[in-house]
Amino acid sequence: MPAYATNMRLKFPIVALVLEIITIILFAVFVVYDDGKGHGHGHSNETHPEENPMTLYPMFQDVHVMIFIGFGFLMTFLKRYGFSSVGVNLLLAAFGLQWGLLMQGIWHLDNGKVKVSIFKIINADFSTATVLISFGAILGKTSPVQLLIMTLLEITVFSINEHLVANVLHAHDVGASMIIHAYGAYFGLAVSRVLYRPALRNGDKNEGSVYHSDMFAMIGTVFLWMFWPSFNSAIADPGLTQLTAVINTYLSLAACVLSAYAISSLVEHKGKLDMVHIQNATLAGGVAVGTCADMDIGPYGAMLIGLVAGIISTLGFKYLNPILASRLGIHDTCGVHNLHGMPGILGGLAGIVAVALGKKEGQAYMQAAALASSLGFALVGGAITGLIMKLPFWGQPPDQNCFDDSIYWEVPEDEGENEGSLAHADHSKNKAEA
Amino acid sequence: MPAYATNMRLKFPIVALVLEIITIILFAVFVVYDDGKGHGHGHSNETHPEENPMTLYPMFQDVHVMIFIGFGFLMTFLKRYGFSSVGVNLLLAAFGLQWGLLMQGIWHLDNGKVKVSIFKIINADFSTATVLISFGAILGKTSPVQLLIMTLLEITVFSINEHLVANVLHAHDVGASMIIHAYGAYFGLAVSRVLYRPALRNGDKNEGSVYHSDMFAMIGTVFLWMFWPSFNSAIADPGLTQLTAVINTYLSLAACVLSAYAISSLVEHKGKLDMVHIQNATLAGGVAVGTCADMDIGPYGAMLIGLVAGIISTLGFKYLNPILASRLGIHDTCGVHNLHGMPGILGGLAGIVAVALGKKEGQAYMQAAALASSLGFALVGGAITGLIMKLPFWGQPPDQNCFDDSIYWEVPEDEGENEGSLAHADHSKNKAEA
Amino acid sequence: MPAYATNMRLKFPIVALVLEIITIILFAVFVVYDDGKGHGHGHSNETHPEENPMTLYPMFQDVHVMIFIGFGFLMTFLKRYGFSSVGVNLLLAAFGLQWGLLMQGIWHLDNGKVKVSIFKIINADFSTATVLISFGAILGKTSPVQLLIMTLLEITVFSINEHLVANVLHAHDVGASMIIHAYGAYFGLAVSRVLYRPALRNGDKNEGSVYHSDMFAMIGTVFLWMFWPSFNSAIADPGLTQLTAVINTYLSLAACVLSAYAISSLVEHKGKLDMVHIQNATLAGGVAVGTCADMDIGPYGAMLIGLVAGIISTLGFKYLNPILASRLGIHDTCGVHNLHGMPGILGGLAGIVAVALGKKEGQAYMQAAALASSLGFALVGGAITGLIMKLPFWGQPPDQNCFDDSIYWEVPEDEGENEGSLAHADHSKNKAEA
Repeated sequence: MPAYATNMRLKFPIVALVLEIITIILFAVFVVYDDGKGHGHGHSNETHPEENPMTLYPMFQDVHVMIFIGFGFLMTFLKRYGFSSVGVNLLLAAFGLQWGLLMQGIWHLDNGKVKVSIFKIINADFSTATVLISFGAILGKTSPVQLLIMTLLEITVFSINEHLVANVLHAHDVGASMIIHAYGAYFGLAVSRVLYRPALRNGDKNEGSVYHSDMFAMIGTVFLWMFWPSFNSAIADPGLTQLTAVINTYLSLAACVLSAYAISSLVEHKGKLDMVHIQNATLAGGVAVGTCADMDIGPYGAMLIGLVAGIISTLGFKYLNPILASRLGIHDTCGVHNLHGMPGILGGLAGIVAVALGKKEGQAYMQAAALASSLGFALVGGAITGLIMKLPFWGQPPDQNCFDDSIYWEVPEDEGENEGSLAHADHSKNKAEA
Repeated sequence: MPAYATNMRLKFPIVALVLEIITIILFAVFVVYDDGKGHGHGHSNETHPEENPMTLYPMFQDVHVMIFIGFGFLMTFLKRYGFSSVGVNLLLAAFGLQWGLLMQGIWHLDNGKVKVSIFKIINADFSTATVLISFGAILGKTSPVQLLIMTLLEITVFSINEHLVANVLHAHDVGASMIIHAYGAYFGLAVSRVLYRPALRNGDKNEGSVYHSDMFAMIGTVFLWMFWPSFNSAIADPGLTQLTAVINTYLSLAACVLSAYAISSLVEHKGKLDMVHIQNATLAGGVAVGTCADMDIGPYGAMLIGLVAGIISTLGFKYLNPILASRLGIHDTCGVHNLHGMPGILGGLAGIVAVALGKKEGQAYMQAAALASSLGFALVGGAITGLIMKLPFWGQPPDQNCFDDSIYWEVPEDEGENEGSLAHADHSKNKAEA
Repeated sequence: MPAYATNMRLKFPIVALVLEIITIILFAVFVVYDDGKGHGHGHSNETHPEENPMTLYPMFQDVHVMIFIGFGFLMTFLKRYGFSSVGVNLLLAAFGLQWGLLMQGIWHLDNGKVKVSIFKIINADFSTATVLISFGAILGKTSPVQLLIMTLLEITVFSINEHLVANVLHAHDVGASMIIHAYGAYFGLAVSRVLYRPALRNGDKNEGSVYHSDMFAMIGTVFLWMFWPSFNSAIADPGLTQLTAVINTYLSLAACVLSAYAISSLVEHKGKLDMVHIQNATLAGGVAVGTCADMDIGPYGAMLIGLVAGIISTLGFKYLNPILASRLGIHDTCGVHNLHGMPGILGGLAGIVAVALGKKEGQAYMQAAALASSLGFALVGGAITGLIMKLPFWGQPPDQNCFDDSIYWEVPEDEGENEGSLAHADHSKNKAEA
């Protein structure tokens, strides 16, 4: 089957090296260190040359951990897909942060140069988050080559929408409920729709967890949960505004845990808790409070947003995800619609209300336009990207090798020796090489 | 057996949601953002409105990691109880930090309001540590509903004792050897005594580790170990005092590792190292140096405290833990008596001596009173809390389902298929549903 | 076989406790807290007494995570050696940081005292990195007693070379490509050569990974990767120089990921990715950019260094490691030659070129002398240390118990019950006790 030529020996190295070399050339032409003498566009916390240029560094590192450990390990819940989850996450984010630095920098050139600061690399990390969210929707069903192409395109489109939202519409979205979470989720869902595989309709034996893969995923969950206040406050105005963003996020997440656990128990068999909900819906409070994080919504306001987000997200996992797959042909492996999509929209709506109530200077219709723009770019950009990814020469996995590391990774042999036990990679290894 | 109605479908969601909604209402009435204009009670580092309100944020995040990753993963050593360890840890801490913010705030109202700052959320995280320590003593033997109730009561009592120690007795306890570690340990032991299950006297087949569960636990150990200097210095006076607290803790922990490893090898079969000691006793130096951390005890003084703590803690695990269980009816799942209890008392005693020797301004008898108060509140509070938790309608697990996730969690099926191998959740699943 | 008396019951506790007690006595005599009144030797960022002494603390914690989680978990890839990897890593680093504080402090006495500051404990952590790198070369083939002795000697020699490089040659090595990475790697390789075991020539059944051990190792990889910018910039001059070090390292690592993945796919069977390369070669960019990190090499210059490092490192794992073992009798368990050795030399060479091109004030021949000095001290120091470690009474493991935790650790019994499955510790346990 030429369409399923999954041997990556030439395709992948060529694509990866060509992308990297082009990127280095563009960096040589356009990118310099920030010398602290810029006049800063668009962001008030970029305009204090007298300040220590390292002030934001601890927050950058928190965000960095979210991107590489948080997203990477969150996706390791699949029983045989951990290498890809954390490994391809690293690959995409490493390329994405370089590309994001360029794409975002284009809109803020200073004497024709992108001046790299801690602020800029935080934003570069942010841009990769969109890709990692979309990755979750199609986890297990795509090749590394396809995903590198998605990274290239998704970040390019993201930087256009971000510029529009921040600098044209002048909308608020400090924690990026709209421009990262909703955008990343619906972009990924659009790609997933285009790449839909009817043969996987009835589920795949590998599309589930084992005990220890669920434990690895909790590493991702907890690091995301802990550092989310940094995500939502890193680029907030310094001082009390930044403090507000931290406190709102801290409290929204805490309230969200209670509602996610409660609803999980309420809807599950015999009142048991479901790891899928715990791993994901506990984070919805961080997503949903994003847009409002730096607004004067009051601590209880943040908690209410978190409470609702936890409920919506858990119900989405339980009831909506199966419907999306069966009715709309949208198979969402990690349930990003429930963690990032709906809570992201909730965050955007909360932002409209909060601005309308005067919790932050701004105009409610601009907030609404920002939400619409983010969803529009996501759906159109994702659909086109999906069509490009569907071209038959990117090494996509055949249906029977989905959700299986061994098609793109050397997997340790010794566990394949005993079929009866954990047996992570044995069957599939044979399949892939057959 | 109605007393063992472990189906949580209604109980747990109702308790969790009611607690959260009451909390949100109290927040709406009492809690506002810190505007930097407070006049600060009791803590010198809260009284610098001109400072950046985010100064303590990196330390807050270190403490946050200790609470959620550190305590959460430290308890994942049990072969079939990882979901509960890290998952219920998240639940209790998420509720506890909200409740702690309220309870601690009551003693420091400013115009009738609790003003939330980074300092306050550090203390809120601290208050949850008492619960997570107590959780260790009863790990595997309680339901999430029981544990939420314990969280509510333990933090309430904690905030009374903390106020007494800090603001009435004016005792020093910067790293909280007494008010968190000793308090949390003896509170948990008192609960464990009241909830004693004679049927588990001879051990349970699930009350042990497997290779990878011990590895997960080491994630918790190492993160606790690394960030303990932040725990002990986060609320110290800024500047050189805070530096002293960092250095004392760093060195105490380092010395403690050597003595814990040495004693583990000395007392174990053929001189081998025991993971239980390595996972726990290596941390005793952080507990024991807590009270003295910001005192001028000299780097070697800190190391001596760590050395002794490592010895006492390891010996406690080896020789005292079995005696507590067999003679006193106190079954201490994680050995919190050895990690937090005795080292906490050692820390309190070291504080008395250090103050008597003039290493910090204060009065030795006030230090002694603080230690006594912490132990008294712990034992009485824990006993009463245990009696409340013993009421027969909180969904507590039957003896044969202790130390087993599958009674409260959906556990992946596939590992249950092969009885012979790791087989985390298979037997018990049947039992629980029988 | 008396030479293989692996019972550590007396040897290990005595060595560990004697070393710790001597260390505490030396601390009592020589070590005090930094009072901020020192006049600072050799490092410009140590000479600002008016500054907050905690400024570097967040970077210290990042480095701390690299040492204890990063190095510790990176080595857990072996199927049955995780307890030793993360546990002995903790032991060696805990002793090493105390010893390093003394040895490095000797060269910077202030009124006859070592004044401990955050800067000093960062350097103490750094000194342990050399040992942990060398540990990787001999992982699985040595006893804890041997490794404690290596720690003592390697850090002592390191502090001499570091003093020579920094204060006599006045060479630049801010990220320590030469004095930590190349030094640690070649020291370890020299030890490994001296301790060569011909019986292991054809590989050991335990010298490989299982699926979940590879996942644990990725925790180490990703934390090292994320926090490497802190490693390379922690002791850089404050302000824009430190920012430069962060950005260069961030970008070098990102480029390195792309080249490491590309080459891994290019050289592996069917274009698959190999976890050994992903776990290690993705980090080579951090090593190689170390010396130049604070130089004005331009963002693209850093990326080029990372690109080349990823290629060299991956090729080294694939082609050079087997040759070293078969031809030169150097068995390098973790491949430290490919991750730290060659990239460290590349970093040293890049530093020579960069200084020659005027990217930083200094003299190129001094840079070359620093590289030569680091390699010379490593090879001679490592060879002598290896000879001392070869003395037959340090409890070294017999060949058939190499790469096996159960010789020095109590390993959970229950997995030994079923020979067919993961069976981490069963065979070897019997062997060790036979």
